[in-house]
Amino acid sequence: MKKGVILVSGGMDSLVTAAIAAKECGKLFMLHISYGQRTAEKELKSFLKIVEHYRPQRHLHVEMDFFKQIGSSSLTDFNIEIPLTDRTDKKKDKQQLPSTYVPFRNGMMLSVAAAWAEAIAANRIYIGVVEEDSSGYPDCRNSFIKQMERAIQLGTGEDDNINIVTPLIRKSKKEIVLTGYKIKAPLQYSWSCYLNNDKACGRCDSCRLRLQAFEQAGLKDPIEY
Amino acid sequence: MKKGVILVSGGMDSLVTAAIAAKECGKLFMLHISYGQRTAEKELKSFLKIVEHYRPQRHLHVEMDFFKQIGSSSLTDFNIEIPLTDRTDKKKDKQQLPSTYVPFRNGMMLSVAAAWAEAIAANRIYIGVVEEDSSGYPDCRNSFIKQMERAIQLGTGEDDNINIVTPLIRKSKKEIVLTGYKIKAPLQYSWSCYLNNDKACGRCDSCRLRLQAFEQAGLKDPIEY
Repeated sequence: MKKGVILVSGGMDSLVTAAIAAKECGKLFMLHISYGQRTAEKELKSFLKIVEHYRPQRHLHVEMDFFKQIGSSSLTDFNIEIPLTDRTDKKKDKQQLPSTYVPFRNGMMLSVAAAWAEAIAANRIYIGVVEEDSSGYPDCRNSFIKQMERAIQLGTGEDDNINIVTPLIRKSKKEIVLTGYKIKAPLQYSWSCYLNNDKACGRCDSCRLRLQAFEQAGLKDPIEY
Repeated sequence: MKKGVILVSGGMDSLVTAAIAAKECGKLFMLHISYGQRTAEKELKSFLKIVEHYRPQRHLHVEMDFFKQIGSSSLTDFNIEIPLTDRTDKKKDKQQLPSTYVPFRNGMMLSVAAAWAEAIAANRIYIGVVEEDSSGYPDCRNSFIKQMERAIQLGTGEDDNINIVTPLIRKSKKEIVLTGYKIKAPLQYSWSCYLNNDKACGRCDSCRLRLQAFEQAGLKDPIEY
């Protein structure tokens, strides 16, 4: 039986990933990690709504402070401003990571998911990474995910054969919106904005990519801006 | 310049690894992780003494609760008893992991170290894993470490070329004691016992391996039993 641990941040990509996992897995385990980011409360709220919607076997909320301790990202260090310039249509400079990059965040999250998967004998980890359309983060690349999967397989008990499933990795944001719409993912529950205001700002990188995706899909984003 | 993040649990292996790193690196960053294990307080105390001894550029104490949340190990779930039967001279059954195994713990710890290394532009991560003489944990194997190193290289910025250094991986416990003695690692500060008593128990797997090592090395263990 497919038994999946799903990393659910509360954003659109992880929600659509959860919707796909819900179709594919007999048993669902949803994992949310608060890492001291500005919008931790909003994302947790989204996560809990998604949990209520999909009713997994179990859900786990993990808190870790160390990203705040090490700093270096505008998401966790509130002294660094979130950039509001438009990066969505610029060619990404791979050498220049945006300030919103959190060092090795997906490595961290996959490690937590792997530990839980091993403890409950789950055989799949779902993560909503998107390679092409992301902000150029190295830990969203398929090559990294494949390597991490192999590391997890070697670093866990011999009975465990854990695979990392990335249903969105080759999709554009537009395709993600269309997929979510088609499989009735409750997109109104998701939170993508980097800022911690009542409504999504519509100006940060994450909002812009989302709005552009809905526009290209010819659909209206159900959240408020 | 060699700039190293050293994972220091407070045990003998990590102390000897720190002593080696202190010789090799121009800048030292010591990292200790409390993960809800029985002996968290004792290990933290050992770590702080080691920090005082080696005076790194910076030291970081990270706390994470999720190993307790997911359970499944006798080190973090206090309802599971620590085994006190002698395993030191038995052929390890690879299918049967001891109850002291914490799922993907080294994967987790290396991920934290990688995130910090990336944030401070360190190029080395030191970890005191021992392949042959350990308790058969999959995340102590060289094949895992190599795979994890590649995952870290792919999952961090292109400028970062982080290597995982494992000076003890091929050594026996006896050789570790002799190395530590030779380079004047303050072995009296280390704590290896799985139990949380005033003195080390001398009966758990970890104590037995340590005592056997000192005996084979012809030296007296400076800690109390």
